Amino acid sequence: MYKMRLLSNALGPRALGRRHGHGGRGAAGFDLGGVFVPIPTPYQKNGDVDYGALAANFQRWEKIPFRGYCVGGSNGEGPYLSADEKIEMVSKIRSMIGNDRLLIAGTTCESTKLTCDLSKAAAEVGADGVLVMSPFYFKTRMTEDSLYKHFVTLADSCPAPVIVYNMVPVTGIDLSIGVLKKMAAHPNIVGVKDKDMAKLAALVTETRNLQFQVVAGSASYLLAAMLVGCSGGINGLAAVLGEPLCKMHALAMDGQWQKALELQRKLVNIDLLLMQECGPAGLKAAMELLGYSGGACRSPLPPICDEKVEKIKRTLEEDGFL
Amino acid sequence: MYKMRLLSNALGPRALGRRHGHGGRGAAGFDLGGVFVPIPTPYQKNGDVDYGALAANFQRWEKIPFRGYCVGGSNGEGPYLSADEKIEMVSKIRSMIGNDRLLIAGTTCESTKLTCDLSKAAAEVGADGVLVMSPFYFKTRMTEDSLYKHFVTLADSCPAPVIVYNMVPVTGIDLSIGVLKKMAAHPNIVGVKDKDMAKLAALVTETRNLQFQVVAGSASYLLAAMLVGCSGGINGLAAVLGEPLCKMHALAMDGQWQKALELQRKLVNIDLLLMQECGPAGLKAAMELLGYSGGACRSPLPPICDEKVEKIKRTLEEDGFL
Amino acid sequence: MYKMRLLSNALGPRALGRRHGHGGRGAAGFDLGGVFVPIPTPYQKNGDVDYGALAANFQRWEKIPFRGYCVGGSNGEGPYLSADEKIEMVSKIRSMIGNDRLLIAGTTCESTKLTCDLSKAAAEVGADGVLVMSPFYFKTRMTEDSLYKHFVTLADSCPAPVIVYNMVPVTGIDLSIGVLKKMAAHPNIVGVKDKDMAKLAALVTETRNLQFQVVAGSASYLLAAMLVGCSGGINGLAAVLGEPLCKMHALAMDGQWQKALELQRKLVNIDLLLMQECGPAGLKAAMELLGYSGGACRSPLPPICDEKVEKIKRTLEEDGFL
Amino acid sequence: MYKMRLLSNALGPRALGRRHGHGGRGAAGFDLGGVFVPIPTPYQKNGDVDYGALAANFQRWEKIPFRGYCVGGSNGEGPYLSADEKIEMVSKIRSMIGNDRLLIAGTTCESTKLTCDLSKAAAEVGADGVLVMSPFYFKTRMTEDSLYKHFVTLADSCPAPVIVYNMVPVTGIDLSIGVLKKMAAHPNIVGVKDKDMAKLAALVTETRNLQFQVVAGSASYLLAAMLVGCSGGINGLAAVLGEPLCKMHALAMDGQWQKALELQRKLVNIDLLLMQECGPAGLKAAMELLGYSGGACRSPLPPICDEKVEKIKRTLEEDGFL
Repeated sequence: MYKMRLLSNALGPRALGRRHGHGGRGAAGFDLGGVFVPIPTPYQKNGDVDYGALAANFQRWEKIPFRGYCVGGSNGEGPYLSADEKIEMVSKIRSMIGNDRLLIAGTTCESTKLTCDLSKAAAEVGADGVLVMSPFYFKTRMTEDSLYKHFVTLADSCPAPVIVYNMVPVTGIDLSIGVLKKMAAHPNIVGVKDKDMAKLAALVTETRNLQFQVVAGSASYLLAAMLVGCSGGINGLAAVLGEPLCKMHALAMDGQWQKALELQRKLVNIDLLLMQECGPAGLKAAMELLGYSGGACRSPLPPICDEKVEKIKRTLEEDGFL
Repeated sequence: MYKMRLLSNALGPRALGRRHGHGGRGAAGFDLGGVFVPIPTPYQKNGDVDYGALAANFQRWEKIPFRGYCVGGSNGEGPYLSADEKIEMVSKIRSMIGNDRLLIAGTTCESTKLTCDLSKAAAEVGADGVLVMSPFYFKTRMTEDSLYKHFVTLADSCPAPVIVYNMVPVTGIDLSIGVLKKMAAHPNIVGVKDKDMAKLAALVTETRNLQFQVVAGSASYLLAAMLVGCSGGINGLAAVLGEPLCKMHALAMDGQWQKALELQRKLVNIDLLLMQECGPAGLKAAMELLGYSGGACRSPLPPICDEKVEKIKRTLEEDGFL
Repeated sequence: MYKMRLLSNALGPRALGRRHGHGGRGAAGFDLGGVFVPIPTPYQKNGDVDYGALAANFQRWEKIPFRGYCVGGSNGEGPYLSADEKIEMVSKIRSMIGNDRLLIAGTTCESTKLTCDLSKAAAEVGADGVLVMSPFYFKTRMTEDSLYKHFVTLADSCPAPVIVYNMVPVTGIDLSIGVLKKMAAHPNIVGVKDKDMAKLAALVTETRNLQFQVVAGSASYLLAAMLVGCSGGINGLAAVLGEPLCKMHALAMDGQWQKALELQRKLVNIDLLLMQECGPAGLKAAMELLGYSGGACRSPLPPICDEKVEKIKRTLEEDGFL
Repeated sequence: MYKMRLLSNALGPRALGRRHGHGGRGAAGFDLGGVFVPIPTPYQKNGDVDYGALAANFQRWEKIPFRGYCVGGSNGEGPYLSADEKIEMVSKIRSMIGNDRLLIAGTTCESTKLTCDLSKAAAEVGADGVLVMSPFYFKTRMTEDSLYKHFVTLADSCPAPVIVYNMVPVTGIDLSIGVLKKMAAHPNIVGVKDKDMAKLAALVTETRNLQFQVVAGSASYLLAAMLVGCSGGINGLAAVLGEPLCKMHALAMDGQWQKALELQRKLVNIDLLLMQECGPAGLKAAMELLGYSGGACRSPLPPICDEKVEKIKRTLEEDGFL
């Protein structure tokens, strides 16, 4: 059977040895090779985070070979949580998951000071890494230089490795390949998550000689991203369809691109429906349909209409996921 | 001497009786008729808020007939401050200013829950009102209905009156006149700040029968806004050129439009230079030039270059302010 | 009776002597002081321009003291017309209007070459001036310098005076006050149309020593714009409510600001409804309601729904225009 | 040697039989499987199109196994050419290229009428197909329905097949998968060009049962796009690096993904540099460096600075292309 050996080799430098045990935090050996779940946040009726529901979800997720989890990102309604809530979530989730799973905290804040403070606090309660977007409130004032300093100051002070999230649709700021390459040279900036396929390909090429990993932001083209050398993905879809996503990743790593492609094709429609057309409320609706605890989003994210829930159900059925 | 009586009458319903004493919080009698300073935040060398510098600034500001102050807005680098810092600032500033001055807290957060919590906390330590922008992280998901609920839920729970800030350049969301009018019907939503002149004019017209005030977001056209019925302005320029701004407001209220216009003309260039071309760092540079405590902005807002400082100095000199 | 003399004086340098006769084309004496109709384009059933309908509309418009007309702008679906159609319209309309009316042609094209060619052709068949937006297809490539050269090359070659249209909502390019001031120094660049109130005020101030006029792009704040020194407006609303708009302009010129303000207030709602909420199709619907020839827009501009037509009707009635 | 048969099969329905001879225009058998050059437009010193330079370029391009050419697109400064120039270019280029090459004309106009007229004229002088973007001048007025009608009216009237170009960065309008699928059902709408990788993957999946082809808009991820089933690319980079691009396409079609990947990696940097960082002027500079006729762009596209030319040269050298 064919194994795409050269491809695996190409990917080689990025497929760093997996960490063993949880004590060994740090940038060296921080391996993003795999699928991460940016976990949605369930709430109790009174609006507080529902840790019972979270624990139930993790019981299922922990049976799937995810590389790890991300807390407090967009899918987790991170901007809707207080700093205290985020830290508490990191702390409690750390105890719900295996030591071999990486726990990444979304710690984006607008000022460098707040970002450093929150990141440090997250690392202290168990985050293995932090995922941070460009500050964008004053987007017209930001310069490449000021953003570079922001990330480097963070990386200097943060006990955990930093992954830069170039989230253009939200921030309106597109970090150039040049500045990302400069950031990649920092020993504690270990990777970048991007949503632009051309950017992903260029970043892999440009950072091939560095200890740096490039992560795809969408399950819709995770396979394509792996083809050009990305190490894995942090994909909302993993919250509901983690098994096929992890299987696709494993098949690609094993050079079985044909079989991987069959899975990729099945995942595109539902991914676009949930992540683009519906957003967090849609992802939570899909969780409910598939037996996870989803529930409502915090206001002002509007609830999803019945029509969309029907469409999600139909799409999941059509592709054999329900 | 001519008094533009009809104009004053027109403005009449909006020029509510000034509050006397600080105890009488609440929407009734909450009068936005005047100039507000959205205060810049000075920092100590270690990065913490510099209350000494703040106190020094207030010593001067309190001699100017401002209607009040706004804490934690864009000019105050609000998004760069923690919730705790914001609350502490409200509390400390309350004791630095007269009882006849209104203290407005910028309490924009992304979720309704966080916004309600922060607003309540601000009111409890002395904020007379809160100024809140539309949540915009998930801007493509927001509906007019969900934003309406957001503001109404806030207004229901907030002990202090709510002013809606339709800050399109930052949020990318333009609240329609229809939904703003609906919000205006809520007894605890007492005003709106907008930056679009056509919108300001329409809002005045549309809400003329309500206890609702329309506030101009820019000193560059404050006079024009007053002409069509706006009650006043919350203008960054007031931090440095409060005297002429307040004088212009008083002249307009008194019907002396000619004299007011002469002042307006002098204020346009420096306002656009500071607020549009330079941003918070430029405003702070101007403060230093005029004897206030300005200092640096928090990172990642870049420092202002010498060339711009020169331009600010030159512009202030040309218009006789330095 | 009070006359706002100082104000009129202030406006003085801009209220240049009206041209007499049509022969005297050129920048000197090109007076934008008044209201211009950016005329909508009616079509025959076969999709061609309907000159019969146009002639009928002009019969009414010519009884209103407009300063002139603008052909081929946004309201006239300019981008939907071929170059030949635009030139033919200029030529035919020239013969439908009085010699004392200025005819301005919208001749925006993407390349300098095409813009120069079209502008020259328009001038040769009777356009007294041209109104030109920044080219914006390659908006991320444009520099202030390349845009400056674009307008200056046009002004050098164009037999008719050039008015710069800083139409940010369409172009996504905001010409700075600095570059507009530089353009204003060119003898054949005679004015600017802008939609930002702060910009209008600053441009008046910055160009006060030049033969340069500043024109308001919206009827909603025409009076406010005149207060700070704008010479007039090119306002879509003039196609349907030219009488009150011209009357308001005349009252302001005469210093009767109170009476002008009463008119301004009546015009805001219908202006925002037609120009912002509805667009060209709504303006045409209003024309039909008021006895002008409107008709449908060219595809792909969608037809206006019955609900909106009802709203337009109701709004016109409420303010006494129907 | 391994051939990725399943992959080829997967691609099968889209790899339609190549047209033989030029007479057989029409949608059936219109095969977009390959690489297309969106040709840059060279100018004479007087600013007119330089057909001598074009002919010289085609002499080289015709030796490369391109599927065809695209005239009047963004790379060809299409928006800077008059309708007459575009038609003349199509006509003259048709005679410069082989009958087995497809000639696609970029015929985007703002109105349906102008688009239909230009497309018909292009087809009559030799265009095998037309590539059309969404009209976007009135972008806030466009509805999915009105855009659908626009493309369908065009497809009904156009003698040549229509390829929809979903060019979001320019238009600001993102045609949904739903409406594109609806368009794909029209017999004369034969394909779509898109720049979003997730969209490309979804479109391939959604239209797998239709005679419809999905084309990648960027050489940076052409291979990834082919992996998920795209038929080929219309890529500016082909103007300068057609050989490796065509070779990569052929290798992928032949299942030799490893070798294809090695080429893809070399093409990413120069592609992003030319197409994103530099734009049309950079592409022309690269043409000059590689012995093609490039020359200057029409104003107001600014000339490229020496520094960028150096960077282009260096990048070409580093990857062995110079």
